[in-house]
Amino acid sequence: MDLRDYIRDIPDFPKPGVLFKDITPLLADPAAFEYAIARLAAHYSQMPIDAIAAAEARGFLFAAPLALELRKPLVPLRKPGKLPYRTYSLKYALEYGEAELHMHTDSIAPGARVLMVDDLLATGGTMAAGCKLVEQAGGVIVGCAFLVELTFLEGRSQLAGYDLFSLLTY
Amino acid sequence: MDLRDYIRDIPDFPKPGVLFKDITPLLADPAAFEYAIARLAAHYSQMPIDAIAAAEARGFLFAAPLALELRKPLVPLRKPGKLPYRTYSLKYALEYGEAELHMHTDSIAPGARVLMVDDLLATGGTMAAGCKLVEQAGGVIVGCAFLVELTFLEGRSQLAGYDLFSLLTY
Repeated sequence: MDLRDYIRDIPDFPKPGVLFKDITPLLADPAAFEYAIARLAAHYSQMPIDAIAAAEARGFLFAAPLALELRKPLVPLRKPGKLPYRTYSLKYALEYGEAELHMHTDSIAPGARVLMVDDLLATGGTMAAGCKLVEQAGGVIVGCAFLVELTFLEGRSQLAGYDLFSLLTY
Repeated sequence: MDLRDYIRDIPDFPKPGVLFKDITPLLADPAAFEYAIARLAAHYSQMPIDAIAAAEARGFLFAAPLALELRKPLVPLRKPGKLPYRTYSLKYALEYGEAELHMHTDSIAPGARVLMVDDLLATGGTMAAGCKLVEQAGGVIVGCAFLVELTFLEGRSQLAGYDLFSLLTY
């Protein structure tokens, strides 16, 4: 199965000149979605992992099935005002403006080995913030997994030192 | 297994006087998370379903594994500006202010039988909006599934005529 068949190009989204990689055809095909999760699970099945963390919202779509497949705790990283318990938080720069991620303070034990998951690696800003947040709690990043990596945006430069794995690269 | 053991009460969130039901302990326990998905899957396994739809962000956490378990297409309902293709959209009232859900126009075929999924049934506003959006596309709601239902908020009154199923009620 070629997962590329389930990624749709949408020109000029979210702004003119950008070719957006739309993952909804993959979500709409249970066999393709299952295959993507199985490939991620296979890649990490022998790696010591204590928890899987992912930022909302699309990260949840891949992290939840992967956490169940690997039988690991799932840690949601969320926007401000969403997590009800005490949180660590981190502000980070986006192309325009600023965003902020939160994580419950009791969700990562010191020394826990954490696999980070997201659907897409673009500029890497959100993933870098998620990694810092986990490290703030004393966690150790064992890898960052993506369905799609847009290599021309050089997100890897923001994630130097981490072990990255992408099912598809463009 | 009693799933109640994995739901944590957080007082005064998001505002004084509200007792928030925090699902993150369930996400953090793979056996409990798996059990919740298995119970939802068992409830719907004999029902004719063509697609599963869920609103971001927490709905994704349950809808994605359930869609994989039942081998059904997953349709994400998202906030404005997130879905790249043409969308149907619907504005709806929240306790304070207004929200808006979008769904790709090609995600639900006319006549498709759609199972709606969310983590929590509170006032029912988001779920009612999601149902209307699916119906706008010609879909037929076969059920609305929740992990937790807060009965005292009477969300069922906003969802009259739909078949609702909740794993836990408070």
